[in-house]
Amino acid sequence: MKFEVTILGSSSATPVYNRNPTAQLLNCNEKFYLIDCGEGTQQQLIKFGLKASKINYVFISHLHGDHYFGLIGLLSSMHLNGRIKPLYIFAPKAIQEILELQFKHSDTNLRYELVYFEIDATQPAIIFQNGDVTVETIVLNHRIPCTGFKFTEKKRLRKLIVEKLENDDVPLDLYPLLKRGVDLTLPNGNVLKNIDYTTDSAHPRSYAYCSDTLMDELYFDSIKNCDTLYHEATFLHEMLERAKETHHTTALQAAEVAKIVNAKKLLIGHFSSRYKTLVELLEEAKTVFENTELAIEGTTYQI
Amino acid sequence: MKFEVTILGSSSATPVYNRNPTAQLLNCNEKFYLIDCGEGTQQQLIKFGLKASKINYVFISHLHGDHYFGLIGLLSSMHLNGRIKPLYIFAPKAIQEILELQFKHSDTNLRYELVYFEIDATQPAIIFQNGDVTVETIVLNHRIPCTGFKFTEKKRLRKLIVEKLENDDVPLDLYPLLKRGVDLTLPNGNVLKNIDYTTDSAHPRSYAYCSDTLMDELYFDSIKNCDTLYHEATFLHEMLERAKETHHTTALQAAEVAKIVNAKKLLIGHFSSRYKTLVELLEEAKTVFENTELAIEGTTYQI
Repeated sequence: MKFEVTILGSSSATPVYNRNPTAQLLNCNEKFYLIDCGEGTQQQLIKFGLKASKINYVFISHLHGDHYFGLIGLLSSMHLNGRIKPLYIFAPKAIQEILELQFKHSDTNLRYELVYFEIDATQPAIIFQNGDVTVETIVLNHRIPCTGFKFTEKKRLRKLIVEKLENDDVPLDLYPLLKRGVDLTLPNGNVLKNIDYTTDSAHPRSYAYCSDTLMDELYFDSIKNCDTLYHEATFLHEMLERAKETHHTTALQAAEVAKIVNAKKLLIGHFSSRYKTLVELLEEAKTVFENTELAIEGTTYQI
Repeated sequence: MKFEVTILGSSSATPVYNRNPTAQLLNCNEKFYLIDCGEGTQQQLIKFGLKASKINYVFISHLHGDHYFGLIGLLSSMHLNGRIKPLYIFAPKAIQEILELQFKHSDTNLRYELVYFEIDATQPAIIFQNGDVTVETIVLNHRIPCTGFKFTEKKRLRKLIVEKLENDDVPLDLYPLLKRGVDLTLPNGNVLKNIDYTTDSAHPRSYAYCSDTLMDELYFDSIKNCDTLYHEATFLHEMLERAKETHHTTALQAAEVAKIVNAKKLLIGHFSSRYKTLVELLEEAKTVFENTELAIEGTTYQI
């Protein structure tokens, strides 16, 4: 199953040096989930050849503008481009009032339905599930209510050991039951033990997105053992005081988090406008957690 | 005096093919006036090396998103970048509610003052004057209340004929009065007739910005004899019915307007996303009004 994330914006606060405010597009089994939507997200989608029409779910971490000012424009363009299927928005409650006020004054009556799900930023919760993925909130520690999101693949069906099944003449119509892990007793009394005919499916991968936060053990449990951890790394560690003051994290701290929670891979982003180049942030993180990459706009990362 | 306009966005409705929604930056004597502010305007300013901090006045024609969705991000970035001087916003009344709602939910207390001037879209009016320029609204005919803006240079002082003044030993301290067009009687009874010592100053140039409108004689008087007319030209004339339906203008009609109002030059923009290239729109307009140019992003046009 495809499970990958494309970075649309990697800048914190203000756009600079061709870096745009935060947005990411998660592709999970060819279903598309937009995570945050800073100003210019729709232009970034066009630039990278990604279709806004394929997005059915939007997740907004918090209401600082660099994480959602692009949403009203994206939704308006979807309307103008003829969208009719519903769009599901998981966001802080006020998003509805903000969007509706602007639609009212532009006299826009959307042709499609916006379905709002209010996020409670006080405790982690499962907020969405379908056949592919479960989405849980991650309670972060920022200046305003803020949640990250953990996307976990659904556990896949067990894998059949086809050669053995064929050797033992197991009827084809029993395969689906075996995939589900069932032991079977045949009419002749023979027992087919599931463990003899199947192997466990691949480990369900997970992607944890921690947008804006102080480093805080508050959220470590929520992201334990994730495969890819995206964590903000706004500053170099020499700016730790500034990071604390603004409720952000340094590259070194992001790496410490990855190590503590036993992530397989770390992706850092949300870079301060003071950094024209990013190599120092990467090097700093790697001193603590080697398997770190920079979130580069237009790049797709396998989870 | 410098009097020029730089195009920041030339697209209608949705961004496409690297064309951004509408925004223009007018430089009048090194003071900067932002006209409309579609999504991504702040990114366009960065791209073209223009300083947002120099903008003191913002004019919003109407509340369709492609003309103002970039404003909240621009204002937020000004705040984050340390602005303390006031910013003056001329816009439909609801802009204040829209901006303040978003500042409230991001817990933003601007360090600088936003001064709002409500535009009445029912009749043309002078809405701003300083030593350089007068700004008047142009009442347009669109789906929601919409005004264009006419920027007219202040009449300059008369030009001194210095050689003659020196020949006749006219005291230097009288020069300023002569520049203002005054006739003077000297203590010895001699009369200095202004017309003998000065010539008329250059004709005050004007820039008329007609954002979104049906072609309608309603606004022709307001833009008569302007030096540069920016007029929307959303469609080719073969799409006239669609233009009427959406309250827009065709390239041919924009040229007709320029001809009727006796503009010196026509600049067309607000191109529909259906046009990947723009040459046909230009050619169509030129069949009626030869001195037409396309509004190209990043290009500065002298008025």
